[in-house]
Amino acid sequence: MSERPVKAAVLVIGDEVLSGRTQDVNVRQIAEFLSPLGITLGEARVVSDVQDDIVEALNALRTRWDYVFTTGGIGPTHDDITADAVAAAFGRPIDVRADALEILNTWYANSGTQLTPARLRMARIPDGAELIANPVTGAPGFQLENVFVLAGVPKIARGMLEDIAHRLKGGAVTQSASIRLEGVREGDIAEMLGQAAVSFPAVSIGSYPWFEELAGGGLSRGVAVVLRSADGAALAKAEQTLRSQLPAQP
Amino acid sequence: MSERPVKAAVLVIGDEVLSGRTQDVNVRQIAEFLSPLGITLGEARVVSDVQDDIVEALNALRTRWDYVFTTGGIGPTHDDITADAVAAAFGRPIDVRADALEILNTWYANSGTQLTPARLRMARIPDGAELIANPVTGAPGFQLENVFVLAGVPKIARGMLEDIAHRLKGGAVTQSASIRLEGVREGDIAEMLGQAAVSFPAVSIGSYPWFEELAGGGLSRGVAVVLRSADGAALAKAEQTLRSQLPAQP
Repeated sequence: MSERPVKAAVLVIGDEVLSGRTQDVNVRQIAEFLSPLGITLGEARVVSDVQDDIVEALNALRTRWDYVFTTGGIGPTHDDITADAVAAAFGRPIDVRADALEILNTWYANSGTQLTPARLRMARIPDGAELIANPVTGAPGFQLENVFVLAGVPKIARGMLEDIAHRLKGGAVTQSASIRLEGVREGDIAEMLGQAAVSFPAVSIGSYPWFEELAGGGLSRGVAVVLRSADGAALAKAEQTLRSQLPAQP
Repeated sequence: MSERPVKAAVLVIGDEVLSGRTQDVNVRQIAEFLSPLGITLGEARVVSDVQDDIVEALNALRTRWDYVFTTGGIGPTHDDITADAVAAAFGRPIDVRADALEILNTWYANSGTQLTPARLRMARIPDGAELIANPVTGAPGFQLENVFVLAGVPKIARGMLEDIAHRLKGGAVTQSASIRLEGVREGDIAEMLGQAAVSFPAVSIGSYPWFEELAGGGLSRGVAVVLRSADGAALAKAEQTLRSQLPAQP
């Protein structure tokens, strides 16, 4: 495996996330799926169901990052424009494709569903794209070069990820360690963490304050210190050093 | 109130969201806060704790959208670089500012916390910025032109939003209606929805498939049809028309 960091982006497509109606969980789900493969997310964007916006974002992301994963907008309704937008971004023709149509025909025959004109929309695949199996509802996603087009429903997106794991070339796997501190504020340990960041340049050190409501009505607070590195030895040394310097840990 | 649509963007700053460690909820929280003010989100981005990435994204967003809300990266630790990145994006000087320092001094005196050199970092505010009150932990956010810099911890971000509602000029408030269909697949209603989208151009019509695990182990499915418009009469007419055409609703 290469030691070059491999970085990906997620492009969430959908007015329902921007309106606040739907809580996106695909960014996190994809990050968690990629992490053990040695691929980390460098950026994520959410855009609305507008072709120009999708094309612009996709072209920015696919030229900058090793991989791009889009979610949403590949269903049968008028607002499902992702496949056409991806084709436009790549300047590729798009039409109903025989292999995708066959998958839909078989799936719907088995489930007794009618292949309506609207459902034909889900067989529109850009020229040269490789299909991605959808084990949940049949209608496939697709891969075009470094772009993977997935469904927006999290269960379906998760099913599709299983089909593409073997297509991804990962880098060094990032390991992490975390230290949970209670009753501590970030300002109490900021200087110590800053020094550790200088002493261990191969280790990324983040600190994340947390707050919890207590059953009695009060508020408990603390900080989670998270260390990440592709260098296991450096990570262990940094963790050991910080644990010895930080306030007592539970 | 103006009828021009007022659009905003959210810029989430933080490796913890991109790593999958933390589930972002601020995009949704901010969308829900803005909606009754007549402001809708047009885009959201998540970038890592890297100054160039923050500057590039912020400059792209603040020139395109009416407002930008950033979350994260304004604490006291070495990875909290948002204030400096925002100053760099605007080409403004930044330093510890007397008004912010006074807020911290008062807050910490009341809570018996020491104002360490690291905590001084939280008083770094770009020249010309207006402070945003933080009712939860004291350290302020700030507004620079059309950019609002908020904390990443959702409770604190929520508290800060209360202080800026009066600074925002909203547009026509978008109203919405939703129709929940059970046992229906998107493909069954796609043609009908596409026709309605043509008949009611002032109404945005979205359809969102849902899946639910049943207690017995099976899977229930359906579609939520969501209509949105700033034109209440058009919305009501579109809803009435669709309800009469769609399959029976619970």
